[in-house]
Amino acid sequence: MKNKKLIIAQAIVTNNQNDEILRDKAVLVENGFISKIIDQKEITSYPDYEKHDFGNHVLIPGFVQTHIHLCQTLFRGLADDLELLDWLQLRIFPFENAHNAKSLRFSAQLGIHELQTSGTTTLLDMGTVNHQEVIFDELIRSKMRAIAGKCMMDYNDLYPSFKKSTREELDYTVSLAEEFHDINGKIRYGFAPRFVLSCSEELLIETKQIMKDFPGSIYHTHSSENKSEVEEVRKRFGKENIEYFNSIGVLDDHTVLAHCIHVNDSEMKTMKKQNSRVSHCPSSNLKLGSGIANIPKYLSEGINVSLGADGAPCNNNLSVFNEMRLAALIQKPIHGPTSMDAKTVFKLATIEGARALHLENEIGSIKVGKKADIVLLNLEKANQSVLSNDENIYSDIVYSASKENVSSVFIQGDQVVVNGKSLIYDEGEIISNSKAELKKLMERAV
Amino acid sequence: MKNKKLIIAQAIVTNNQNDEILRDKAVLVENGFISKIIDQKEITSYPDYEKHDFGNHVLIPGFVQTHIHLCQTLFRGLADDLELLDWLQLRIFPFENAHNAKSLRFSAQLGIHELQTSGTTTLLDMGTVNHQEVIFDELIRSKMRAIAGKCMMDYNDLYPSFKKSTREELDYTVSLAEEFHDINGKIRYGFAPRFVLSCSEELLIETKQIMKDFPGSIYHTHSSENKSEVEEVRKRFGKENIEYFNSIGVLDDHTVLAHCIHVNDSEMKTMKKQNSRVSHCPSSNLKLGSGIANIPKYLSEGINVSLGADGAPCNNNLSVFNEMRLAALIQKPIHGPTSMDAKTVFKLATIEGARALHLENEIGSIKVGKKADIVLLNLEKANQSVLSNDENIYSDIVYSASKENVSSVFIQGDQVVVNGKSLIYDEGEIISNSKAELKKLMERAV
Repeated sequence: MKNKKLIIAQAIVTNNQNDEILRDKAVLVENGFISKIIDQKEITSYPDYEKHDFGNHVLIPGFVQTHIHLCQTLFRGLADDLELLDWLQLRIFPFENAHNAKSLRFSAQLGIHELQTSGTTTLLDMGTVNHQEVIFDELIRSKMRAIAGKCMMDYNDLYPSFKKSTREELDYTVSLAEEFHDINGKIRYGFAPRFVLSCSEELLIETKQIMKDFPGSIYHTHSSENKSEVEEVRKRFGKENIEYFNSIGVLDDHTVLAHCIHVNDSEMKTMKKQNSRVSHCPSSNLKLGSGIANIPKYLSEGINVSLGADGAPCNNNLSVFNEMRLAALIQKPIHGPTSMDAKTVFKLATIEGARALHLENEIGSIKVGKKADIVLLNLEKANQSVLSNDENIYSDIVYSASKENVSSVFIQGDQVVVNGKSLIYDEGEIISNSKAELKKLMERAV
Repeated sequence: MKNKKLIIAQAIVTNNQNDEILRDKAVLVENGFISKIIDQKEITSYPDYEKHDFGNHVLIPGFVQTHIHLCQTLFRGLADDLELLDWLQLRIFPFENAHNAKSLRFSAQLGIHELQTSGTTTLLDMGTVNHQEVIFDELIRSKMRAIAGKCMMDYNDLYPSFKKSTREELDYTVSLAEEFHDINGKIRYGFAPRFVLSCSEELLIETKQIMKDFPGSIYHTHSSENKSEVEEVRKRFGKENIEYFNSIGVLDDHTVLAHCIHVNDSEMKTMKKQNSRVSHCPSSNLKLGSGIANIPKYLSEGINVSLGADGAPCNNNLSVFNEMRLAALIQKPIHGPTSMDAKTVFKLATIEGARALHLENEIGSIKVGKKADIVLLNLEKANQSVLSNDENIYSDIVYSASKENVSSVFIQGDQVVVNGKSLIYDEGEIISNSKAELKKLMERAV
């Protein structure tokens, strides 16, 4: 019975190619997969299914975020209104460096709790330098779908003690990938050299080569986020950031580049040619004053774009609803009010995120045979359209909804959120544990 | 007993000039006024006060929004991803014109419900052309603090049947002002000629003269929102929008101008000289592709700026939390990450909003003698800073919080929201009434 679920919804946003919105249907789930979509009047023919009745809710595919730093969740509110270099040097690097296994665990719990309760079911995470096994442990425990990996740094001008040798980074990374890649059908390894300026060329290249032993793994890094960053790259290598990555052979269709704000036309062509992917992080890009990535142009070039909340200290929220709303709104003064319409943005947060991670055949839409990563939204609230219909269902989700509309969340058929509350974590417990550990961490970081 | 309340909070953001944050205190409220702030250990000395214990909450002054269209709340989700002129001509004007008293009532209820449950206790509302008495009725019934008035239009090229004659507009306005201005100590009249292009010069000027009979009333209009709007003003009058307003004598310290995006330096000087006020509506300005107002410059010139969510169809949310977060974020790529810090933005949404409406001596901060417009925020949630302290309390509110953190709301000492739920309205009832009326309205609007 536990492996057979019947989920009833008022509307189903299939998110398949024809964008069908189904009414009066129910989704059957078996062993974590969507096995059938039936008419609600046929429900009585499935008496041995565990019934979940969301008769006035909207059923959508779970959200996918492609750039998250779970290790930073603990540091929310400790690095506001700062320049990027100060942000890294004075706060983020010292704090990340001061993590022990215990503090990192609560940081991951805080982040996963927030992500799941706001409807994110898959994430691409950039870990930190040490204790990455703890993050995998929490991802597994929380039933999350994730591509994750330790952050690799063998250079660090800003905070020299926070790095490892090239060899240490590569060896630790390989041992983690061997242990966690494909461990439970939901976790894959995401190789994560932090960014050009914190990695040797050897590290960047060798990491790409190691990936061949781990099919389905992702190369996850930051690129072209900040003007001084791209200037420094230009100074060191005589090339633009994306061009440099291309020249050393690390760009391909398994590479996800976070930010991609300061990118010229020729670099865009390179990205298109190599089929590399953009993770767009609008809140973070605004808050750190980095700029606004030209997403309409990436999309018109046919480059894959997905969304990420980045880390809590540069956002300061992990809800995908903030990222969707901003992804739509910030382009409109530049590209006009009809650009980045709600449906386009919804897709970036779902199927395009899946595509970025090569999971588009497994998740990202509601289709028989796909894994049952499902979110139920209660849009019968006073902050939503009065008459929800097929035309405004996307704008309700993108422009009006927030975490408060997330009712239930299923990952591979397992329910992880009910009535907006986590079934995995006790919120109060996470908060009190986090308080205790953050206090100790801040003493270590001094 | 009902008129004597004792409100206990973990922290009090006083928002007074010295920005003091009080710990271990309680606020005494008598007959709607803050009568005393005491140490929590003195609580037992006040046994005849109704005790409200928010021991782990943050107490802040109620939010003030200075540009709202309650009449449009019903139309959320019906006008998305459109050009401004299409937005007005195809949707907003036909819909507003189709309002009857009943549909307008539910539109106001929906809006007030959303505003109060997200912590807004004072608003400046632009009504619609007909049935304005219904909006006043709901404002009074909901215990809201508001400056409101019927929208005036004696010109309408886009939708000619939606307007009245100059005389009708002025007479109806005067009769409303006579009835509702200062009716219950919380309501004042806000004279609301819609914008230059929908008003005759006679209407604009005479309205300003009428105001003299209603001390404390506000002149509330739109200005310089859209490029085609300012071009059309230039064509008709040979002047910039603000210059035109100044030339006919309608700018003074009781004038609140919504948007003010396309404003040149000389117009800013005029605004400064006349002490007129800007209502900044970031969500709306982005969603309609209007642009980004230069708020840091207004602030450095010493011009009063406050925030507004505008109407639900161009946002699509009325929560002040969205406006605060955006007001901070959108300036940072232009003016740097340290611009528009969280404390500055919090003030725009509170005391500066009060100042815009000449209510700064009555509300906007937590001070003995002020009216008890008070919001309690539960920031002990997993989407907030782990260690909330005096340094990050503003960033928690501006960058991380949302409606879900609003626990209780008091207006002039009366509780209108408890545990995030309205004590005034039944949400389900508003929604079902609204559905029925919107269906009928849309038939009328065809």
